[in-house]
Amino acid sequence: MLKKRRDGEREQPVVKKIQFADQKQEFNKRPSKIGRRSLSRSISQSSTDSYSSAASYTDSSDDETSPRDKQQKNSKGSADFCIKNIKQADFGRREIEIAEQEMPALMALRKRAQGEKPLAGAKIVGCTHITAQTAVLMETLAALGAQCRWAACNIYSTQNEVAAALAEGGFSVFAWKGESEDDFWWCIDRCVNLEGWQPNMILDDGGDLTHWIYKKYPNMFKKIKGIVEESVTGVHRLYQLSKAGKLCVPAMNVNDSVTKQKFDNLYCCRESILDGLKRTTDVMFGGKQVVVCGYGEVGKGCSAALKAMGSIVYVTEIDPICALQACMDGFRLVKLSEVIRQVDIVITCTGNKNVVVREYLDRMKNGCIVCNMGHSNTEIDVASLRTPELTWERVRSQVDHVIWPDGKRIVLLAEGRLLNLSCSTVPTFVLSITATTQALALIELYNAPEGRYKQDVYLLPKKMDEYVASLHLPTFDAHLTELTDEQAKYLGLNKNGPFKPNYYRY
Amino acid sequence: MLKKRRDGEREQPVVKKIQFADQKQEFNKRPSKIGRRSLSRSISQSSTDSYSSAASYTDSSDDETSPRDKQQKNSKGSADFCIKNIKQADFGRREIEIAEQEMPALMALRKRAQGEKPLAGAKIVGCTHITAQTAVLMETLAALGAQCRWAACNIYSTQNEVAAALAEGGFSVFAWKGESEDDFWWCIDRCVNLEGWQPNMILDDGGDLTHWIYKKYPNMFKKIKGIVEESVTGVHRLYQLSKAGKLCVPAMNVNDSVTKQKFDNLYCCRESILDGLKRTTDVMFGGKQVVVCGYGEVGKGCSAALKAMGSIVYVTEIDPICALQACMDGFRLVKLSEVIRQVDIVITCTGNKNVVVREYLDRMKNGCIVCNMGHSNTEIDVASLRTPELTWERVRSQVDHVIWPDGKRIVLLAEGRLLNLSCSTVPTFVLSITATTQALALIELYNAPEGRYKQDVYLLPKKMDEYVASLHLPTFDAHLTELTDEQAKYLGLNKNGPFKPNYYRY
Amino acid sequence: MLKKRRDGEREQPVVKKIQFADQKQEFNKRPSKIGRRSLSRSISQSSTDSYSSAASYTDSSDDETSPRDKQQKNSKGSADFCIKNIKQADFGRREIEIAEQEMPALMALRKRAQGEKPLAGAKIVGCTHITAQTAVLMETLAALGAQCRWAACNIYSTQNEVAAALAEGGFSVFAWKGESEDDFWWCIDRCVNLEGWQPNMILDDGGDLTHWIYKKYPNMFKKIKGIVEESVTGVHRLYQLSKAGKLCVPAMNVNDSVTKQKFDNLYCCRESILDGLKRTTDVMFGGKQVVVCGYGEVGKGCSAALKAMGSIVYVTEIDPICALQACMDGFRLVKLSEVIRQVDIVITCTGNKNVVVREYLDRMKNGCIVCNMGHSNTEIDVASLRTPELTWERVRSQVDHVIWPDGKRIVLLAEGRLLNLSCSTVPTFVLSITATTQALALIELYNAPEGRYKQDVYLLPKKMDEYVASLHLPTFDAHLTELTDEQAKYLGLNKNGPFKPNYYRY
Amino acid sequence: MLKKRRDGEREQPVVKKIQFADQKQEFNKRPSKIGRRSLSRSISQSSTDSYSSAASYTDSSDDETSPRDKQQKNSKGSADFCIKNIKQADFGRREIEIAEQEMPALMALRKRAQGEKPLAGAKIVGCTHITAQTAVLMETLAALGAQCRWAACNIYSTQNEVAAALAEGGFSVFAWKGESEDDFWWCIDRCVNLEGWQPNMILDDGGDLTHWIYKKYPNMFKKIKGIVEESVTGVHRLYQLSKAGKLCVPAMNVNDSVTKQKFDNLYCCRESILDGLKRTTDVMFGGKQVVVCGYGEVGKGCSAALKAMGSIVYVTEIDPICALQACMDGFRLVKLSEVIRQVDIVITCTGNKNVVVREYLDRMKNGCIVCNMGHSNTEIDVASLRTPELTWERVRSQVDHVIWPDGKRIVLLAEGRLLNLSCSTVPTFVLSITATTQALALIELYNAPEGRYKQDVYLLPKKMDEYVASLHLPTFDAHLTELTDEQAKYLGLNKNGPFKPNYYRY
Repeated sequence: MLKKRRDGEREQPVVKKIQFADQKQEFNKRPSKIGRRSLSRSISQSSTDSYSSAASYTDSSDDETSPRDKQQKNSKGSADFCIKNIKQADFGRREIEIAEQEMPALMALRKRAQGEKPLAGAKIVGCTHITAQTAVLMETLAALGAQCRWAACNIYSTQNEVAAALAEGGFSVFAWKGESEDDFWWCIDRCVNLEGWQPNMILDDGGDLTHWIYKKYPNMFKKIKGIVEESVTGVHRLYQLSKAGKLCVPAMNVNDSVTKQKFDNLYCCRESILDGLKRTTDVMFGGKQVVVCGYGEVGKGCSAALKAMGSIVYVTEIDPICALQACMDGFRLVKLSEVIRQVDIVITCTGNKNVVVREYLDRMKNGCIVCNMGHSNTEIDVASLRTPELTWERVRSQVDHVIWPDGKRIVLLAEGRLLNLSCSTVPTFVLSITATTQALALIELYNAPEGRYKQDVYLLPKKMDEYVASLHLPTFDAHLTELTDEQAKYLGLNKNGPFKPNYYRY
Repeated sequence: MLKKRRDGEREQPVVKKIQFADQKQEFNKRPSKIGRRSLSRSISQSSTDSYSSAASYTDSSDDETSPRDKQQKNSKGSADFCIKNIKQADFGRREIEIAEQEMPALMALRKRAQGEKPLAGAKIVGCTHITAQTAVLMETLAALGAQCRWAACNIYSTQNEVAAALAEGGFSVFAWKGESEDDFWWCIDRCVNLEGWQPNMILDDGGDLTHWIYKKYPNMFKKIKGIVEESVTGVHRLYQLSKAGKLCVPAMNVNDSVTKQKFDNLYCCRESILDGLKRTTDVMFGGKQVVVCGYGEVGKGCSAALKAMGSIVYVTEIDPICALQACMDGFRLVKLSEVIRQVDIVITCTGNKNVVVREYLDRMKNGCIVCNMGHSNTEIDVASLRTPELTWERVRSQVDHVIWPDGKRIVLLAEGRLLNLSCSTVPTFVLSITATTQALALIELYNAPEGRYKQDVYLLPKKMDEYVASLHLPTFDAHLTELTDEQAKYLGLNKNGPFKPNYYRY
Repeated sequence: MLKKRRDGEREQPVVKKIQFADQKQEFNKRPSKIGRRSLSRSISQSSTDSYSSAASYTDSSDDETSPRDKQQKNSKGSADFCIKNIKQADFGRREIEIAEQEMPALMALRKRAQGEKPLAGAKIVGCTHITAQTAVLMETLAALGAQCRWAACNIYSTQNEVAAALAEGGFSVFAWKGESEDDFWWCIDRCVNLEGWQPNMILDDGGDLTHWIYKKYPNMFKKIKGIVEESVTGVHRLYQLSKAGKLCVPAMNVNDSVTKQKFDNLYCCRESILDGLKRTTDVMFGGKQVVVCGYGEVGKGCSAALKAMGSIVYVTEIDPICALQACMDGFRLVKLSEVIRQVDIVITCTGNKNVVVREYLDRMKNGCIVCNMGHSNTEIDVASLRTPELTWERVRSQVDHVIWPDGKRIVLLAEGRLLNLSCSTVPTFVLSITATTQALALIELYNAPEGRYKQDVYLLPKKMDEYVASLHLPTFDAHLTELTDEQAKYLGLNKNGPFKPNYYRY
Repeated sequence: MLKKRRDGEREQPVVKKIQFADQKQEFNKRPSKIGRRSLSRSISQSSTDSYSSAASYTDSSDDETSPRDKQQKNSKGSADFCIKNIKQADFGRREIEIAEQEMPALMALRKRAQGEKPLAGAKIVGCTHITAQTAVLMETLAALGAQCRWAACNIYSTQNEVAAALAEGGFSVFAWKGESEDDFWWCIDRCVNLEGWQPNMILDDGGDLTHWIYKKYPNMFKKIKGIVEESVTGVHRLYQLSKAGKLCVPAMNVNDSVTKQKFDNLYCCRESILDGLKRTTDVMFGGKQVVVCGYGEVGKGCSAALKAMGSIVYVTEIDPICALQACMDGFRLVKLSEVIRQVDIVITCTGNKNVVVREYLDRMKNGCIVCNMGHSNTEIDVASLRTPELTWERVRSQVDHVIWPDGKRIVLLAEGRLLNLSCSTVPTFVLSITATTQALALIELYNAPEGRYKQDVYLLPKKMDEYVASLHLPTFDAHLTELTDEQAKYLGLNKNGPFKPNYYRY
């Protein structure tokens, strides 16, 4: 596979035994399963932990009974769910309402479809992070006519209050914060394995739900109209299935839609690099020398932001085209070895492995900050720092000082895992773009005429990509210009788009 | 056809009977012929006019005899050329030497291929602007083993001294500044129609040479290994041929190579918008309100540059994805009508027609500057200003004041033609990228094993695009990082590239 | 007084009966005492609270005995101090050591003066925040020959572990976190009122120590060589004393030194506005419409940072010169009423009062974020929001939703107090500049020949300001150019500076 | 004198015999006289030369008779002037009308004063560049009640058509393009030496007029109420007079007014560095390595502009405070020797001499561009390049290639004189600020009550500086906020300003 995407895939291993906060295993140490977790939810959660009363409310809950052992009903008498505590529903509802205000695109979708119910008859089984933003998505799908059953794609990321509000609202949700691996699969199974109900659409984030159905209930695919998959890993698995000729329904790769990609990478990282560094180290950016490894969208965002704040930024690249872009954008293109002794901050954004190896770490100056914005935890060879002569000192959450025998300290952030996932937040606006893209992909696959999609992996049609974008313009009070008939004819375009050829680079 | 490119193509009048769909009509409306010009050469020339002694040297030449009526030989006795004045060869040689210093990529190509002669046996017939930069290209092709015969693709753009130097150096060049239409085709014919010599490669810029061979010597295509075409219009013509099943050799579309596109549009326009406005109007950018119509690469470059100089920039767009990018980049997205009364400068970069119509021109404020960076002369409805109640006053070369009855003046630049072609220059670095791309495309087509290319239009292979970029990195003293074996394996990449999938957006 | 400075001064409740003109009233309205804090220390502390184990160590201390009631001795047997817990000394020492690494200028001062002891004989009594950074300053003063006795200028800002380390190191420190008002004055008194010891230098931050000596021990001034005062309020009080003819020793206003001002305002706020907004609201900056009220140094920093992150920034100003600067820097200059309905974020940086009044708050759109970077808590009329029809909801620490009857929510940060003090951190680099300036001012006043300074308030000599700057250049590996003799003569300058006339604006 | 200003002083020596275009002598080689020329006029002229029909009109005038030998009358029969050709009046009038549109502040002054005539009775003798912008100033002074007699402060800068229009309009103008030195003084004398008319105000630019009156008609000072001087050199001469106790009337230094300084330096140079480099060399900025020597306002402007265009900028400084600013603004602070081998462009902005000496020129790489934005022609040691082994080649107007024996070429711009004066233009907006400042200074001095100004040199009162700024805000449609009574009281300010203390740094 080429250039891996940076959406945090694999950050969250699926675990045999419950892992705790900072302990993460690399997914690829495990033989068969691909981890999952995409760009966001648990992040907001982690941020919530530090700040909001919501989190403390949850945290103070010292109820140790497993949800699986509890009998709970919602106010309408339904017990078709399994969550932490139905009593938290009111609190979760407020969280959902706040999220609604920041996700106007989904609210607009509900409005525009009014009456129509484009998802009437859809039976969607979903497996994603369960957060307030997901709740807005689920309630949108329901408003458009769908029935939904949902599990969590991550054992840690569920917002229990939100799950409670969803259960109280009639959704069959099976998820809580801190599931065991056994719980994890049990929840997924409860979603799909129900007398008298068969899903006809799958919304997946990481591919575990899809994998489970393939493994346990392959016959279900007869009724399934399509799969919508958000994560890099999940998409990778789908392409592998397709290659192997085993993909038996159409699948939509929403990860690579233009709008989502630009926001997940360039626009989001431009802000989160600053935020992540500040929250962890309080470093002043002005005058700092920084090397950014990799000048893809993430590297472009990081470099631009730091330059704007007065840092002096060096860039490393392997691809001459991106390298030339870095030059024209005003960055010195160097090899890491040329600047490693002088820089104050090292940021990896390559999607590669072992970009920062022990040799470089040895040569960094005292106080140098090292962090990863790129891919999983492979970019910095953190393992090489686990040697007897080096002392590790945890100075803050997510911040370690690694101390050399001569007293030199390297400031390692998030143990080399993704800084923006570990130490920053993902703006709701970005989540809104993702959720809207998912909703439209579901509508498209569900309503597509026979034959439009075969048993293959598809990108979201450009027109729908444009539609996602257009639904987010009102947030900025942005006013689109419409083509006149004469202009549309001159350009050979439909007035409603799509406006660009598929190869257009934006 | 979608989104037209902005490379100045349509500036070219294409001559009687051989016009195609997209060609502009301007030429036909005027009794005498207007030269064509594409992205650059004649520009440098026009700039040269104002500044350099070179130009005055040329200009002072009051020799009115047609080159076709002259008998000239170079110092080796050859007469197989037709140019203005062989005596200008020394002067032209100096110009070529200066250009060589600024085109290190071609010089590197010569060096790297030393010994090998990848174009040994190639007989290239070319039709491009004939400038010092082209001369460096031609001499590079020769150094790599090719024989070349050349005509001009534009009746005005030939640098006579350079043509002289080429002729003196043994190239069969047929071109001079100020050809008639008859001269134009005569020159092309002289290139291809030669006893005992048949071309096996075509390098074209605009498609006229290709057209001529199609029309007059269709049999020649039996020996021709391929066509390399640089311009939008030429590429368009090739696609039409291909669609019609009439393309009988492989053709390489070098216009759309990544590197060329980025430099022609984003990076070049970022600088030329400032340059063009300053040279024509001396306007101060700070605090000015500007509306940029269109947020493609050109609009992005213009907006970024003006914002950086302290202008307040508004953007209009029809495509919601580009619109969202404008928002995230910090520009208010408006309809033109919302801001037309308040802006100081209007810049069109849409590739569309009638973007600025009379209605808007009527509402602009006194002193508003109007110019076009986009496509040909269609974007501003200049014709609508040719009405009796409006007075035109030429205040400088390329600058007209259009005066309303109430005294309001609009400052119209280049009569709505491309500002960056008319009033600015194209950096040699950009020309170098284009020329290197052309050279590599020729090498690729000439050496490709049977069957790699069919009778179709191809984009330059990404690896060659990367190679063009890599040849230009030394200009910036930029140091590329090399993948380790382990990393290449991890990424599933060849260490020498290509480094990205084809759909990668840069 | 003109333009108030923004260093958080007014955050300080100044205590009963000794309030002056500009003092804020907040403290008086509240029954119990609220701590004062100036530009920084407690901030770092508050940040530390969220992240570091240090804080939790302190917090977990449930020792309720007042330090005044404890008997503590350091390891050398001295009991001339009063702090929370001498056992925390080791921990505090580590904090000091970390701070030392980030304050190389003070460390360089120690080194350069080695041997000389320019403060030999100095008996300095100080009243500042007691933090690791202050400790580095104190130990520097001691290394230069001074004896020091110290109290806290803020009842909340003392880092108890640092105080412990100082006491263990032999400093007579009287300070702990959470002093009562009575404790506050008792500590100050213990610093100055000692048998057989009289201070000859004062280092003050806020003017309380100076005030106390004026009130209780006016005779001490006979031996005092000078006062160094850091804060706006303290400086204001000194100017008032001077005006009234009551200032009986020279005083150095270090608050207004060029270097300190630039860093406290422009450079620091450029970063802290982003940090403060992110930590409290996780807002995405791209595309947001922001109005910045006031375009002094703080406004300039805020505007530049947000523009760089893709926000669309409007500016309001009362001063036409600053207004013109805003225009030339690319910001629309508006009245608040023009944009109040459309903006997403309102930031006050004026130093004025009632800039954002209820009328504007009523017209803001749902979700608008309102915060203050300017002066104390006067800029936003928060009191006007305490009406029955509005609901306040605390959603996070420092973040309130104020909810209108129609459901509109305004996001008010830090209840209108300084965002950068409440929700952000001050980089150690900025603190280093301040501390170095203080040290040099003490040295200057202590060593100045008779008559250089009269009983007046002075700015730091430009040459010392330059020296502070030069001591911080190594942080950036910055290499200063030296004038040749010939150049110095040509410019009429001393090769060692000062390099600019006093009126130079930087 | 400290830090010299960069306004082009001394660029134009006063000459014994007419000098031609590119030949300039350093003023300080001449024993007694200080040259003059301030920021602009002849520049616009030089630009006009290249582009406008105006210039060609002038140029085509081959009338060789000296104006002193001609008999000319305007249409009202007056002959009290001496100019090139009264017949050019219409053309000049149009130029003035165009300038009026771009100088709204002066037009507003006329309007606001309507009726009042604050200069009634003023008899102003002026000596400045005579351009369309000056004409707008003169006609404004006349509209406010003044009588004016005018000479040129520069033998080359007079726009003959404008002088004609002024003469036709009844102004006694004595100036033409291409005066001899004798002409120069003769013209000045004709202005002041008139039966029955004595000036009571002086507006000078360079101090020659003032000098002449001192030398020839010292008694005139009895009636003179004041001198307004614009240039650095003129101001320098006034301070010297003042120091020597010889200044016998108040003088206003308008050169150092805040608004003028910011526009002359920071804002103007930010644009003119790009313009000057492009017009001379067509260099592409993206990716270029540039060293800017000096980080005052000019250096700040140049550095910011080039950084924004994608250049990599290094800065050199002697002043640690400015050096620290460079660091915080994101520039590597280096010594010239560290980067001289690698940079593509060297720009001097120091106000110093011999900043770029032969040693550095020897080490530059091939093609390096060297230019001066700072002070006169002292910064680059051009003389050191006039050695036999180096070849000079003039490649364009203002562009020389200096060629080393090994073929290395340095591109020297404007022979080391000011790039922005020689190769760029000054925006009318900047000239408008200067002219408005001059007008207000004249009004202030003329109307000041007895005793407000003594025989000394004064800066423009801040309130008038603010007024100049406020008159230029409408250009940007900028809306100033007014203080409420309550706010003004709180701040201790008058609602109409001044708004800042004198030491405020902007």
